[in-house]
Amino acid sequence: MKPWEKYTPELVADLYELTMAAGYLEEGMSGEAAFSLFIRDYPKYRSYFVSAGLEHLLEIIPEFRFDKDSLEYIASLGRFRPEFIDYLRDFRFTGTIRAIPEGRIFFAQEPLIEVTGPIIEAQIIETLVLNVMQLETMFASKAARIVHAARGKGLIDFGMRRAHGVDASVKAARSSFIAGFVGTSNLLAGRLYGIPVFGTMAHSYVTSFECELDAFLAFARAFPEGTVLLIDTYDTIAGALKAVDAAKIMAADGKSLLGVRLDSGDMAGLSRQVREILDQAGFPDIKIMASGNLDEFAIEELAGKGAAIDMYAAGTRLCVSADAPYLDIAYKLVEYDGRPILKLSSGKKTWVGKKQVYRFYGEDGKMNHDRLCLHDESDTAAEPLLETVMVDGKPTRKPEPLETIRSRIASEFMRMPEPLRDILTRANYRVEISKTLQELDDRISNEKRREEVEAVLEQHDPPRS
Amino acid sequence: MKPWEKYTPELVADLYELTMAAGYLEEGMSGEAAFSLFIRDYPKYRSYFVSAGLEHLLEIIPEFRFDKDSLEYIASLGRFRPEFIDYLRDFRFTGTIRAIPEGRIFFAQEPLIEVTGPIIEAQIIETLVLNVMQLETMFASKAARIVHAARGKGLIDFGMRRAHGVDASVKAARSSFIAGFVGTSNLLAGRLYGIPVFGTMAHSYVTSFECELDAFLAFARAFPEGTVLLIDTYDTIAGALKAVDAAKIMAADGKSLLGVRLDSGDMAGLSRQVREILDQAGFPDIKIMASGNLDEFAIEELAGKGAAIDMYAAGTRLCVSADAPYLDIAYKLVEYDGRPILKLSSGKKTWVGKKQVYRFYGEDGKMNHDRLCLHDESDTAAEPLLETVMVDGKPTRKPEPLETIRSRIASEFMRMPEPLRDILTRANYRVEISKTLQELDDRISNEKRREEVEAVLEQHDPPRS
Repeated sequence: MKPWEKYTPELVADLYELTMAAGYLEEGMSGEAAFSLFIRDYPKYRSYFVSAGLEHLLEIIPEFRFDKDSLEYIASLGRFRPEFIDYLRDFRFTGTIRAIPEGRIFFAQEPLIEVTGPIIEAQIIETLVLNVMQLETMFASKAARIVHAARGKGLIDFGMRRAHGVDASVKAARSSFIAGFVGTSNLLAGRLYGIPVFGTMAHSYVTSFECELDAFLAFARAFPEGTVLLIDTYDTIAGALKAVDAAKIMAADGKSLLGVRLDSGDMAGLSRQVREILDQAGFPDIKIMASGNLDEFAIEELAGKGAAIDMYAAGTRLCVSADAPYLDIAYKLVEYDGRPILKLSSGKKTWVGKKQVYRFYGEDGKMNHDRLCLHDESDTAAEPLLETVMVDGKPTRKPEPLETIRSRIASEFMRMPEPLRDILTRANYRVEISKTLQELDDRISNEKRREEVEAVLEQHDPPRS
Repeated sequence: MKPWEKYTPELVADLYELTMAAGYLEEGMSGEAAFSLFIRDYPKYRSYFVSAGLEHLLEIIPEFRFDKDSLEYIASLGRFRPEFIDYLRDFRFTGTIRAIPEGRIFFAQEPLIEVTGPIIEAQIIETLVLNVMQLETMFASKAARIVHAARGKGLIDFGMRRAHGVDASVKAARSSFIAGFVGTSNLLAGRLYGIPVFGTMAHSYVTSFECELDAFLAFARAFPEGTVLLIDTYDTIAGALKAVDAAKIMAADGKSLLGVRLDSGDMAGLSRQVREILDQAGFPDIKIMASGNLDEFAIEELAGKGAAIDMYAAGTRLCVSADAPYLDIAYKLVEYDGRPILKLSSGKKTWVGKKQVYRFYGEDGKMNHDRLCLHDESDTAAEPLLETVMVDGKPTRKPEPLETIRSRIASEFMRMPEPLRDILTRANYRVEISKTLQELDDRISNEKRREEVEAVLEQHDPPRS
């Protein structure tokens, strides 16, 4: 796919969404289904997730229609009857979506989204819903950890070049911005979302000049405001000394050098030496910025070693969520035509029924625990996390501004128990299962095990290893 | 970004590409630059890379123009002089690209692409070139390993839901297809590239019916050709017995059940039991397909345990390249205005100058070693890997059909030394440095170290830790 190519969301689907849909249609199955989107378990080191992606999903769902080209392509596969193609021609999603808003902390097994509607409709959008929700939730969850590790130091996203395509790069920029980054190098994200853009020079700029100092001075002439010089092209210490020379020449002209950037080597030690060089030369205000394979782990280590770094750029490891490049996210049928549903597949627990998550706070105002309930249980003492955001296929509210979501994450983080924030140790937040949910789940599990498994095995006496 | 939104490639750029370009323009630097795109080192377990992404790059570069909206956005940043905006208005890439064609085996430090042209032009496209080339090369390199591990068994890409956005998902489908997969579940990739699409049912289909056997029979009625039944929803063995019942009912109607799919549990043991059930029931032709977190490591393990699996689906771990979600790819200035260039940054070796890679074969027809040379060295006994693919910003040949690239990978794999194919052990393929390149690199390194580092440090006597 070319990055400028326009395409329609209805083909953001695995083929089986259509074969199942055709199967439902064939059987006349028009009952209401409820699907639950949740993350089964945590990646290593992770103790929480940050919700993101909902705003995009709410924009896309109403546009999910089958255009002429898509219908022709689907018909050309030779698998579907004309009645199904006719059905798709008039397709639109007419259901309801309840969701945890963007920028909230949530936990494994908690539904991030519940989609209710005619089973064909709720099935056909599965792949799109998963793709959109995983990507941004993964990035926001990673970025929140980096923000925590940076302890108030400014953070910029530099990852566009190594993100998995352009779509991923702009979503990484948006997700990291709502998590607390100050901006991005990504021009497309800057234009699409109004996120502040940052950036100065690469090694190629420095090396294109006969000598490093000439490169510094030329750049300062072109961009006297906000100049940041990359000083590790040949040797970081020699580079810092030349940056001092450049700062002096700029000062003579009434200009100030904003900062220097380190991109390789032992950045804890180098940053302290560079700080000393800058301070001794009378430039205590020149900032030191660091980049190069940084994420929460590297930043935590630098902080622990007393690095003198004022600002960090996180690139690749943020934009591919390097330590956890996917979430174990699932979209499961939990109710059909009033019948609570679950599957028993080994190692893949799904809680039965439409649900709500209630959050309980302690007297200190911090999150104390959550309770996973059936959707019609109520608890006035606690805060429900899922809200209705779409009815009859239309959003029930205006899109949330980025700043609203950004503030929400910041305030969620304040209310999160301290141990959960730690980036190196998994902490367990208590997610209770309500008695009603547990009983229903037990009853349906037992029934299914008896009907679908035990009766069959007794009858056949198959080989067991 | 919405998945159907049209956008232009010129904002697939980090801001610094523009600040550097403006700096070059300001200094009147119009000399010819050569940039080299290469991968610095191997991810763990990896011994080779498979080139991919070039065809997309060749399509995009000629479209890289600054449209009115983009120019307005760039001007709105308030950083650039009107002369630079005027320059961008007329921008097009007029340079030359030499590249290793798609579907070839290549190694760390070997240039995958060399871009030659006016320095501003070759700089501005940096982020785009890196983003496009890393993504598909990463996927093709991962997929080739999976194909090897599958030992001739059919492979299907199932990863759209967990890929990092839609762009990544279609590129994973394309890259895995050229590496030897038989197809994908991804409808958009099917439409865009004509890749065969596959897929049948999810757990939601099975659970939407009152009982599993009803779901199987309904699906077989809707899709009597090519039916594959997912049998692990409640219990894989009970599911296999019900699949036998379904197969018998289909047989009575003159139809054949194509296969069953396992998606959880101990798939080596379960597949053997299911095979036995199917064989004993008189259905030796029903295929067993496996899915669920499969990649080369899992498939190798299954094969080692004697799994009775006829076909594999690789999803998440393929589509995020889970064990190596990025490559250490770089785009470095190696020559400017006739002057050979390198940087000395610690741990980030860049070879100086425009280069060619020559490949030497042994008497057995297998790859013996490569030699990294300056571009104007010639060696008639060996095969040059880089070809000229773009001149004056225009492709010099027609796009290569997918089948051509797919055949090329297959034949490359045949010529690859056996130890390199192993998926668990890093093997070293010899990449020699030509004497001429080594001498030039040493000379420039020494000059730069003397001029840029030693002279400065002697003069200043800075703090050294």
